[in-house]
Amino acid sequence: MSSPPSCLRLRRVAGHLLAAPVASQQQQVIIDSLPDGPLQAANFRVRDAATPEAAEGEVLVQTLALTIAAGQRAGLQGSASYAGAPRAGVVMGGTGVGRVLASRCADFDVGDLVMGATGWQEVAALPGQAVTKFAAGADPALLLGALGTNGLTAYFGLREVGAPQPGDTVVVSAAGGSVGHLVGQMAKIWGCRVVGVAGSEEKCRSLLGDLGFDAAVNYKSPTFRDDFKAATPERIDVYFDNTGGDILSAALFRMKRRGRVVCCGNISGYDTSQPGNGPRGVPGLLVNNEVRMEGFLVFSYADRYAEARAEISEWVRSGQLRPRTTVYNGLGKAPQAFVDLLQGATNGTTVVRVAT
Amino acid sequence: MSSPPSCLRLRRVAGHLLAAPVASQQQQVIIDSLPDGPLQAANFRVRDAATPEAAEGEVLVQTLALTIAAGQRAGLQGSASYAGAPRAGVVMGGTGVGRVLASRCADFDVGDLVMGATGWQEVAALPGQAVTKFAAGADPALLLGALGTNGLTAYFGLREVGAPQPGDTVVVSAAGGSVGHLVGQMAKIWGCRVVGVAGSEEKCRSLLGDLGFDAAVNYKSPTFRDDFKAATPERIDVYFDNTGGDILSAALFRMKRRGRVVCCGNISGYDTSQPGNGPRGVPGLLVNNEVRMEGFLVFSYADRYAEARAEISEWVRSGQLRPRTTVYNGLGKAPQAFVDLLQGATNGTTVVRVAT
Repeated sequence: MSSPPSCLRLRRVAGHLLAAPVASQQQQVIIDSLPDGPLQAANFRVRDAATPEAAEGEVLVQTLALTIAAGQRAGLQGSASYAGAPRAGVVMGGTGVGRVLASRCADFDVGDLVMGATGWQEVAALPGQAVTKFAAGADPALLLGALGTNGLTAYFGLREVGAPQPGDTVVVSAAGGSVGHLVGQMAKIWGCRVVGVAGSEEKCRSLLGDLGFDAAVNYKSPTFRDDFKAATPERIDVYFDNTGGDILSAALFRMKRRGRVVCCGNISGYDTSQPGNGPRGVPGLLVNNEVRMEGFLVFSYADRYAEARAEISEWVRSGQLRPRTTVYNGLGKAPQAFVDLLQGATNGTTVVRVAT
Repeated sequence: MSSPPSCLRLRRVAGHLLAAPVASQQQQVIIDSLPDGPLQAANFRVRDAATPEAAEGEVLVQTLALTIAAGQRAGLQGSASYAGAPRAGVVMGGTGVGRVLASRCADFDVGDLVMGATGWQEVAALPGQAVTKFAAGADPALLLGALGTNGLTAYFGLREVGAPQPGDTVVVSAAGGSVGHLVGQMAKIWGCRVVGVAGSEEKCRSLLGDLGFDAAVNYKSPTFRDDFKAATPERIDVYFDNTGGDILSAALFRMKRRGRVVCCGNISGYDTSQPGNGPRGVPGLLVNNEVRMEGFLVFSYADRYAEARAEISEWVRSGQLRPRTTVYNGLGKAPQAFVDLLQGATNGTTVVRVAT
């Protein structure tokens, strides 16, 4: 007799890790309608549903916390057509941290702390290959923020695409946001002068005070263009763009010769059904100043996540990097958290705590 | 007694090279008014003027031929403010090939064939440092085209910024133009599949027939988007952009993952007083497909011009590269040549023969 395939074995676990019997019902947040204009909480609906079972190779995960990213709004513009694409009636997608309730994959034990695409639901069945295990006791908010997609995006986008040198002027938009507040702090760690662009005076003060930015500019101010110019007297070596639109346009006019624009996000084009034109200055200003503009996806660096997480963890431990989180309590708050995020009312990583 | 500075020495020349006495009067084409809307020949005026004298370190050059580049139209939009910027009343600038009539620079002899910023005039006094000498007997049209700024721009932009690999799909806009027709042929030499975008069926036929392009698409056709898609079934690895605007937008939607957009020119934005918005898809499509878009100026590669010219010369000699030229005869034809160029009525390098 051959031994059974490893993913079929149920793992022996210590008594104290044994989860309570899994409830047969759970709550989910589904997309009730695709937004027509700015997103509203009413575009979502909470429903009861049957708890899934783990199939061969899968783990059953109880969601502890979710994070919401502005880029998820783009998926709700209705143009995606792949299997599982967001549409009315399906569970809203998203990354969560959870606890393994049952495992049909040899790599995981009941009780393991994992991160994966749980979606907005209390319990998810996920392929073992698609979840990552972390040390027991780690803070879900840290895993979802500085050690999650946000932190990795900031790290690889700035380091590999922006390639900042000590002394460079680095500008980041949505600077108080999930990726932006980490980009600015990493640029400081790497010896750069850092300018943040954010959407309120209060956010700007916070960038200067707590996060150590050298300058901050409120893009909603009527004097934004002048303020931005004053904040970049030696022009810009690296612009980390989370917004696209008018802020990208303004930055293109301030790029130094051979400057780099890291195209990470396009928040200005997300919360609408009718994305506008591209930024003025493309391609003219790229030519005149020999500027490089480059998009990237963090997933392309997946084989280096561990290395990046080790470095980021050390920064957090030493206090050089101070991740921020805006926390909402309860799965049912996820829609409002998403609306708040898109309206600029959150700081740092937006986290919804689903269970403890 | 110390010897005089080298640039003050007048050179001894063989009798047959000694130029005829320089006439005291010459013709120039000046900017009569900055264009308000599409350029017209009437924006220029021919005038008589005194022939200059070469100052210390200068050479006096008789213009044999001029080339006109679409990018010069951007300088007439009135925003340039540096000394010598185009404005009403000044001689129109431009690159020419000419013969040295008198030299107060040790590096040049009377009779030398040189290229430099002669502007639209019969005789120009130019700093010796700013002109390049070529072998006697070289064809001015070749020097201004494949061996001049056009050829060097195609060579360095495609090779260094586009970095094409054998088998790549390379698309070039303004494909029948001064830079474009050379880009396409160089991409073929480097083993790529080449698609040209041009403004008429006739131009497309010519790209396919004489120049060896694999496909050609007329951007003025009502079926352009579909035609473009059909011509790039495996999407685009390298897009060499001479136009910006709608063609750039269309190309961005067809880029392959990790594709490169070489930003060379912005013809669609030149012949107007009100440049429009940037292309749709920036930055969203750059992010989704991890596309790099990079501007460059050929002057940054000046220390490698000789190497490039040697390679291009060999291609011309062997018949692998077939430069094209549209020739106008007489300095007074320069304004009409410029208008024709902007309206897409010329092919290859636009040359105005001024003297023989």
